Amino acid sequence: MSGWVAVAGLGPGAEDLVTPEVRAALAEATDVVGYIPYVARVAPRPGLALHPSDNRVELERARLALDLAARGRRVVVVSSGDPGVFAMASALFEALEGCENTPDIRILPGITAMLAASARLGAPLGHDFCAINLSDNLKPWALIEKRLRLAAEADFAMAFYNPRSKARPEGFARVLEILREACGPDRLISFARAVSTPDEALNTVTLAEARPEMADMRTVVILGNSATRRAGAWVYTPRSVP
Amino acid sequence: MSGWVAVAGLGPGAEDLVTPEVRAALAEATDVVGYIPYVARVAPRPGLALHPSDNRVELERARLALDLAARGRRVVVVSSGDPGVFAMASALFEALEGCENTPDIRILPGITAMLAASARLGAPLGHDFCAINLSDNLKPWALIEKRLRLAAEADFAMAFYNPRSKARPEGFARVLEILREACGPDRLISFARAVSTPDEALNTVTLAEARPEMADMRTVVILGNSATRRAGAWVYTPRSVP
Repeated sequence: MSGWVAVAGLGPGAEDLVTPEVRAALAEATDVVGYIPYVARVAPRPGLALHPSDNRVELERARLALDLAARGRRVVVVSSGDPGVFAMASALFEALEGCENTPDIRILPGITAMLAASARLGAPLGHDFCAINLSDNLKPWALIEKRLRLAAEADFAMAFYNPRSKARPEGFARVLEILREACGPDRLISFARAVSTPDEALNTVTLAEARPEMADMRTVVILGNSATRRAGAWVYTPRSVP
Repeated sequence: MSGWVAVAGLGPGAEDLVTPEVRAALAEATDVVGYIPYVARVAPRPGLALHPSDNRVELERARLALDLAARGRRVVVVSSGDPGVFAMASALFEALEGCENTPDIRILPGITAMLAASARLGAPLGHDFCAINLSDNLKPWALIEKRLRLAAEADFAMAFYNPRSKARPEGFARVLEILREACGPDRLISFARAVSTPDEALNTVTLAEARPEMADMRTVVILGNSATRRAGAWVYTPRSVP
């Protein structure tokens, strides 16, 4: 019996945003590995072993998945959103480099948070954009600031993952300062929390009105480009630049 | 009877990458509006009117959808991938601005081409990245060049949509020149064509080896950042920057 690992994106939260491909992998799995709240989204059933683990142990989790697959198990590593966007796919390949036998691996895409948020807000990412992880756990803070300034100069719309945590309360306040300086006070910024779940909350304001407390770790933040505008309750970025 | 418009992402091509949410909207629709090849992906049935239209008529198509909804029809505007990424959602809001009565509108996210491609390749977008539409139909070419240089300076991984068409054969050659100059000859670049369809083809080379003919309008191109590497047949970008 040959094992495999599928790294699967569960989407932002709603069941009807989980792809049939991911659903099928979960139906075939013997083991589900992942961060506690994501594993909790998988329905238990006889014959399915659940392996929830805490945050910040991505490499250990990836090694567990590879080890289970080497023993013939069919393992789904679950990520929220898309596994390739600030999630478990890169961690799996990092773990793989120290691995002698490579099992069968598949990466199964999902609806990533920024695109679920963008859809609820309107179309703020409808022109060129960038995605930046605001956590400095795995990179220097100076690099985050540099990227923000260059992205503003490029007039990208921007999606921010992991804007704020209890461990890093000051970082996002600094991000807002930099953005106000680089993009001006009238630029639109949207806070999309827990999109597609019962806790969903959307809030669009100008940079002048934005406050750090508007974001938490369940929020994805989307900054418009210089042309982003409102159309009624919607926010969108036009396709054209004159 | 009240009409509505749903702008829905059909994903990159495979049926099992269409979300149940989009599937449900199509099941309730009276009308499907969209670019010819995307409308062709919707199964005909009695009571469903199909309105395929040619490329580059996005605004007319959006107005048709709004007009049908105003007459009480249930309209799905289909996009490939995700409707908010270089697709129909922004066009709908542009058309809405000239519209007196706003119907009920929903944007239904889908698996966008770059994330489907990233999943097949490994995890090349596993760190901060940007998405750039290389078509200069709707923006000045100079802006594309400016964004490429700034994105390279920011060391973003980059996903390129619409890299090359018959109408613009020279642009992508120029893009490769700029990237070679800004990122050096050894940077990895991946060409992912028609991902998740029977025509799928993946090709990863260095910038020194990259040729314009490796891309066409069915290709999404992904450039790694300075840390992007191979792990066996996979390509991934590590999560960390030392």
